[in-house]
Amino acid sequence: MKIIGSRDRWMEAIAIVQKAVPSRSTLAILDGILVEADETVKLTGYDLETGIECLMEADIREKGHIVVPSRMFGDIIRKLPEDIVMMEVSENGQITIDSGKTHFTIKGIAADGYPKIPVVDNGKAVSIRQSLLKDMIRQTIFAVSSDESRPTLNGCYLRCEGNQVEMVAIDGFRLALRRKTVEGDEVGTMSFIVPGRTLQEVVRVLESGGEQPVLIRPSGNHILFDMGDVKITSRLIQGEYMNYRGIIPQTADSTLVVSPVAMMDAIARASLIISSEDKRFPVRLSMSEDDTLVVTANTDIGTLREEIPVELTGNRIDIDFNPRYFLDALKVIDQETVTIAFNGSMGPCVMKPSEGSDFAYLVLPLRR
Amino acid sequence: MKIIGSRDRWMEAIAIVQKAVPSRSTLAILDGILVEADETVKLTGYDLETGIECLMEADIREKGHIVVPSRMFGDIIRKLPEDIVMMEVSENGQITIDSGKTHFTIKGIAADGYPKIPVVDNGKAVSIRQSLLKDMIRQTIFAVSSDESRPTLNGCYLRCEGNQVEMVAIDGFRLALRRKTVEGDEVGTMSFIVPGRTLQEVVRVLESGGEQPVLIRPSGNHILFDMGDVKITSRLIQGEYMNYRGIIPQTADSTLVVSPVAMMDAIARASLIISSEDKRFPVRLSMSEDDTLVVTANTDIGTLREEIPVELTGNRIDIDFNPRYFLDALKVIDQETVTIAFNGSMGPCVMKPSEGSDFAYLVLPLRR
Repeated sequence: MKIIGSRDRWMEAIAIVQKAVPSRSTLAILDGILVEADETVKLTGYDLETGIECLMEADIREKGHIVVPSRMFGDIIRKLPEDIVMMEVSENGQITIDSGKTHFTIKGIAADGYPKIPVVDNGKAVSIRQSLLKDMIRQTIFAVSSDESRPTLNGCYLRCEGNQVEMVAIDGFRLALRRKTVEGDEVGTMSFIVPGRTLQEVVRVLESGGEQPVLIRPSGNHILFDMGDVKITSRLIQGEYMNYRGIIPQTADSTLVVSPVAMMDAIARASLIISSEDKRFPVRLSMSEDDTLVVTANTDIGTLREEIPVELTGNRIDIDFNPRYFLDALKVIDQETVTIAFNGSMGPCVMKPSEGSDFAYLVLPLRR
Repeated sequence: MKIIGSRDRWMEAIAIVQKAVPSRSTLAILDGILVEADETVKLTGYDLETGIECLMEADIREKGHIVVPSRMFGDIIRKLPEDIVMMEVSENGQITIDSGKTHFTIKGIAADGYPKIPVVDNGKAVSIRQSLLKDMIRQTIFAVSSDESRPTLNGCYLRCEGNQVEMVAIDGFRLALRRKTVEGDEVGTMSFIVPGRTLQEVVRVLESGGEQPVLIRPSGNHILFDMGDVKITSRLIQGEYMNYRGIIPQTADSTLVVSPVAMMDAIARASLIISSEDKRFPVRLSMSEDDTLVVTANTDIGTLREEIPVELTGNRIDIDFNPRYFLDALKVIDQETVTIAFNGSMGPCVMKPSEGSDFAYLVLPLRR
């Protein structure tokens, strides 16, 4: 194998596939990156659950396959003195890397032993803009459950029906739902559960402003996110997802319109005196008559009391929450105001951006 | 106690004194910051070895002293919504902090139990510009020994004689020396050993471009670095410092003039394949006839070979070094070229900036 490429292109491609390289694997070859030079150069990282493949432009002088030690190879490439990089692999797997007057040799591993990523080639696919998919993941992933006794909740539920795409995450205490009507052909009905860990990797590869489409292609036990040069394959979580239809109440005893930033800042301050280990202490929201929300916390460490201007309708109540559950959702609402609907001090509370119905977040209060 | 101050001033002062607050102390009160409001507001952090005091502008409505929990207090101040901060301490040590519509209360500790920093009030003092003191520390501190069996080498030796100030650090394998002739009155002869840990704190407080003088005032077992609003007091290391006069050879078998950046980059690349745990493997410098230095490393991980253009005089030799020892010194040389003098493959090597004689670094080669 002999290829001439750009240091900066190498660095980009390595950074992408490294996200799927396990930090410590029982299978030593997985600590490496598979480099394949055929018609084009392809890098692969794979932890047996998620595989990331990335195509890279390069001048291929001689085809070949090799597994390079991931961290070491990345460190060497990053420190090379010039952008032009010549990489050559000898018969015995010795890798030489040349750039300017710098000449490295390191040992590679034969590519034969590298496990194959399952091939997903199903006809059905849904196409979503990169930026939209990124938003959908960002606005739900924080509510994925880490409780391994209910595996179906360890992922986001992605459901397509007609022109509508919906992503949902639920743990025992809250539910985040992001919905979007996509343009173009109907995608047909399909649904699947993608592991939260895979989506964390997908979201890091997606570009915020990216208008490029991502082709999402599920097939049996696996799913492929196809971004063109970058492909992420993951196993799916098997099982029936919780039926969340009807969980979100459509009525409310009281509603509150507030700036998400003002609310977030107040609750973040309250969190300071609520130690993260000690979950006994809630943040309390108290609605007063004069369109003021009083945020209080009272713990062994100290107290906080803060007033925020809000628009209030309906019953004035006091209600207690885990502050983190509120912060997680407020962080991902990009609009200027958010509407929060309450159903008494013990009923579920629903947060939505004041405009549009694309996002909803349900959270249960703490018992007082 | 009741004071009205600025959030940003508080944050600056807390950041400075927190450097002397131990992360985990056997004496619980030392986990706090002593706040004293008399004619002015003074904050103190102290770990019984180094004490930092910082004056802060504020409107003092009522005098008083209190110890505040360091981390918590800093977190609260940083998150306050407005710059105007009112702090009030009640008779029973309850601290209230108000800013905008935010109202915190936390518990303070009575100031009586806070240990006193030793008072240093000796007539003798040497005055050095902040930026110069920062350079002197930065260019020597990396060579301070961490071997606790020779306590005198766990600090930098500061020696003043006439108009000359000299700072030296030595471990078993290298010596860094920074010298400067200071303007103004003769400072008289004095010398003392300042713990490396203290200097790490001093250097973080000093400003790079700072033209303000630092008054250095030793007295018996302690030393005071007086920067006006900030004062750092430290114990001194007792004992006789190693006699380093005459250690630096004045002659050389070979000399080499090179760009410190080119040399640093090449050795940093060599370091990649020299695992930091395994000290067996050196970086080798080989001088060739045609004004080229060949840098090589050869380890279990792989090999590096790199050529750097240099100016060579004298004998061409091969010599082996611990790469870190070279990098440490190259990093702190700000000039465009450095002159390195060699005394055979086994003799000490001396690195100096090509212009001026303010800095010298001696390093022993590794045995081959």
